[in-house]
Amino acid sequence: MMRADAARNRARVLAAAEVVLGEQGPAARMDEIARRAGVGVGTVYRHFATKEALYAAIISARVELLLQAAARLRTAATPKTAFFDFFTQIVADAAGRKSLTDALRGAGVDPKAEQSEQRTRMRAALTELLHDAQRVGAVRPDIDMPEVLALLRGASLAAETGDYPGPVLDRALAVLFDGVRPPTARPSGGNRLSRAAELP
Amino acid sequence: MMRADAARNRARVLAAAEVVLGEQGPAARMDEIARRAGVGVGTVYRHFATKEALYAAIISARVELLLQAAARLRTAATPKTAFFDFFTQIVADAAGRKSLTDALRGAGVDPKAEQSEQRTRMRAALTELLHDAQRVGAVRPDIDMPEVLALLRGASLAAETGDYPGPVLDRALAVLFDGVRPPTARPSGGNRLSRAAELP
Repeated sequence: MMRADAARNRARVLAAAEVVLGEQGPAARMDEIARRAGVGVGTVYRHFATKEALYAAIISARVELLLQAAARLRTAATPKTAFFDFFTQIVADAAGRKSLTDALRGAGVDPKAEQSEQRTRMRAALTELLHDAQRVGAVRPDIDMPEVLALLRGASLAAETGDYPGPVLDRALAVLFDGVRPPTARPSGGNRLSRAAELP
Repeated sequence: MMRADAARNRARVLAAAEVVLGEQGPAARMDEIARRAGVGVGTVYRHFATKEALYAAIISARVELLLQAAARLRTAATPKTAFFDFFTQIVADAAGRKSLTDALRGAGVDPKAEQSEQRTRMRAALTELLHDAQRVGAVRPDIDMPEVLALLRGASLAAETGDYPGPVLDRALAVLFDGVRPPTARPSGGNRLSRAAELP
């Protein structure tokens, strides 16, 4: 069990590393991360022996947040929207993850390979939310996890490029979700994608 | 104007290079490509001064084929299906392109940056097919090119990973296309994704 102040320091290093990585990309240095976290560089290395271990820990922490969100969505008794909310959160996370995955790839680490246990839990959470949504008729009955994973991967990769503004990604996801719904369950009755976000 | 036999040799080198790249990846060698094409290695270098120039020419030739397909689709008077057919062909091309784009990236060449003129023509072709489809009610009226490009990019990137079998990609595209259609225009009446390809 980690002592409370050690756990606090670790969390501060992770948060600072995300900021520095976002600003400086793969060139980010451990001493700069330590400075921003307000700890000595020795403290950084005590928690994370290498920069790669630090990056992997950031991704792992982000996935934990997503898993917590999935658990909350399941217990909030909103099976009509929970699947779509979780899908949206994963894509939003991907949109903010580019500098991180670039840094990992630059260090020769496959961002996916590092956390197969978390990936299994993510997949289980998504499966539960999918089946809940199908049970209440919010998702078409003829779709299954392989298609969902392919669609989610595509949406995440497109978001991760950083080439598409938020409102465009939102509307693209709305189109995708209409395809995931049974034909009778489009929330707007169809044909009314919101363009409000583009108004001045 | 290239002499006919020179043009034939160039085409043979391109075809051989695609095969060798697919088999050997970025390690593919120019002399092996020449051997498969049945020409001397000098002939290869006369057409393509560097391996990077050769790879870029392969991509360029593939995009030309897609552009020709778009032109055929437009004149075949099938605006209800032409947009979807073109989208599908682009994604299928992406699925077969991984070894090529990996090789280009490995050589430090951005596979996208090389052909901005072709990208402009691709975008124009897609815009025309989109508007044709909207005119006949095959695509919802509230979707526009930015969303279409984001969806196409996502589908292409997912296909390019090579992680999804063909039938899964087909069904994921079918779901996506249902979202692109007006709610009344799902071809199957909805809820009947074909799983025939998985039967023994």
